Amino acid sequence: MPKQVDHDERRALIAEATWRLIAERGIDAATMREISSSIGMANGALKYYFPDKNALVRTAFTHVFEATNARIRARLAGTTGLAGLRVFCLEVMPVEDVTRLEARVVLPFWQRALADAELAAVYVEAMAVWREQIHGFLRAGRADGSVTTGVPDAVLAEQLLAMLNGVQALALLDGGAATPDLQRRMIDAFLDGLG
Amino acid sequence: MPKQVDHDERRALIAEATWRLIAERGIDAATMREISSSIGMANGALKYYFPDKNALVRTAFTHVFEATNARIRARLAGTTGLAGLRVFCLEVMPVEDVTRLEARVVLPFWQRALADAELAAVYVEAMAVWREQIHGFLRAGRADGSVTTGVPDAVLAEQLLAMLNGVQALALLDGGAATPDLQRRMIDAFLDGLG
Repeated sequence: MPKQVDHDERRALIAEATWRLIAERGIDAATMREISSSIGMANGALKYYFPDKNALVRTAFTHVFEATNARIRARLAGTTGLAGLRVFCLEVMPVEDVTRLEARVVLPFWQRALADAELAAVYVEAMAVWREQIHGFLRAGRADGSVTTGVPDAVLAEQLLAMLNGVQALALLDGGAATPDLQRRMIDAFLDGLG
Repeated sequence: MPKQVDHDERRALIAEATWRLIAERGIDAATMREISSSIGMANGALKYYFPDKNALVRTAFTHVFEATNARIRARLAGTTGLAGLRVFCLEVMPVEDVTRLEARVVLPFWQRALADAELAAVYVEAMAVWREQIHGFLRAGRADGSVTTGVPDAVLAEQLLAMLNGVQALALLDGGAATPDLQRRMIDAFLDGLG
């Protein structure tokens, strides 16, 4: 099915161009016209794949979410329990150039998801994936004795999710205070408190 | 100075109308024209006070921030240490109707602050105020013996700030998971861990 493959490639090309433009130049500068011209595509062709800006924001967020998850899988290489949870957190937090750039897609995504049920559903699904992953690390940690706290896993998982969401805003907008070093200490202290 | 008073009143009136429109109808629906017509003011008059949308977003955020702080002061009534910190957190988290509505101003504010240095400076200043307030509660808690953890206050304060920022997104976009009850348990578990 050569035609199908071509469509998938084009979608991937558009997703890559879109998240980078949003991250580097801002959501308002990343117009449909800017995105289509950045990849040498007619505006009408872009609209065939992504009919409006929210469809583009959705694909940009999904692209960033999947890229993050792919890096987590690669860095985990089977590690689980507390050590795995540390790898997961450090990859989600904006402590490196790439994660700081990716966070610049997350903030406009949230804002648009407030008024778009489809975008909100994408967020709910993404958080469900991470929540389940955090629960898996905690279960393994309780099994190997490294997690002994009496705080229920559901509460711990939501604390971590909230912290990981919150540092996206803090690190981008108040990076002089929420430095990468401080972010790492926040995660270390949280994880050390589980034992 | 009756004229000066009139200007201040008008600014307050505009701030009140603006944050409510943004919260209830979304940032895109809250156009300059909608805001001016909602308070029976000519569009040109509105522009005299707030020249563009970002100036309005700034005043809406500041309004919400100051309203939150006024409620915190009223509820604290002198309480400090861990008990004070609990009051502070529960007032900032979107666990009640008013704080959930206010959070709907915070998300678009963040997104616009990414591309506007003045808005970002307002956020940095707001976080500095809260950071200092959290430090005050922690110092009092250490003095009265209710805070004994070896984790430095700077790390604890940033963990809390990240969590309080993160629940704004989580509760608004994934409220089925991050319920008010779970948010309260997150804060209780965090504060219980400090002793």
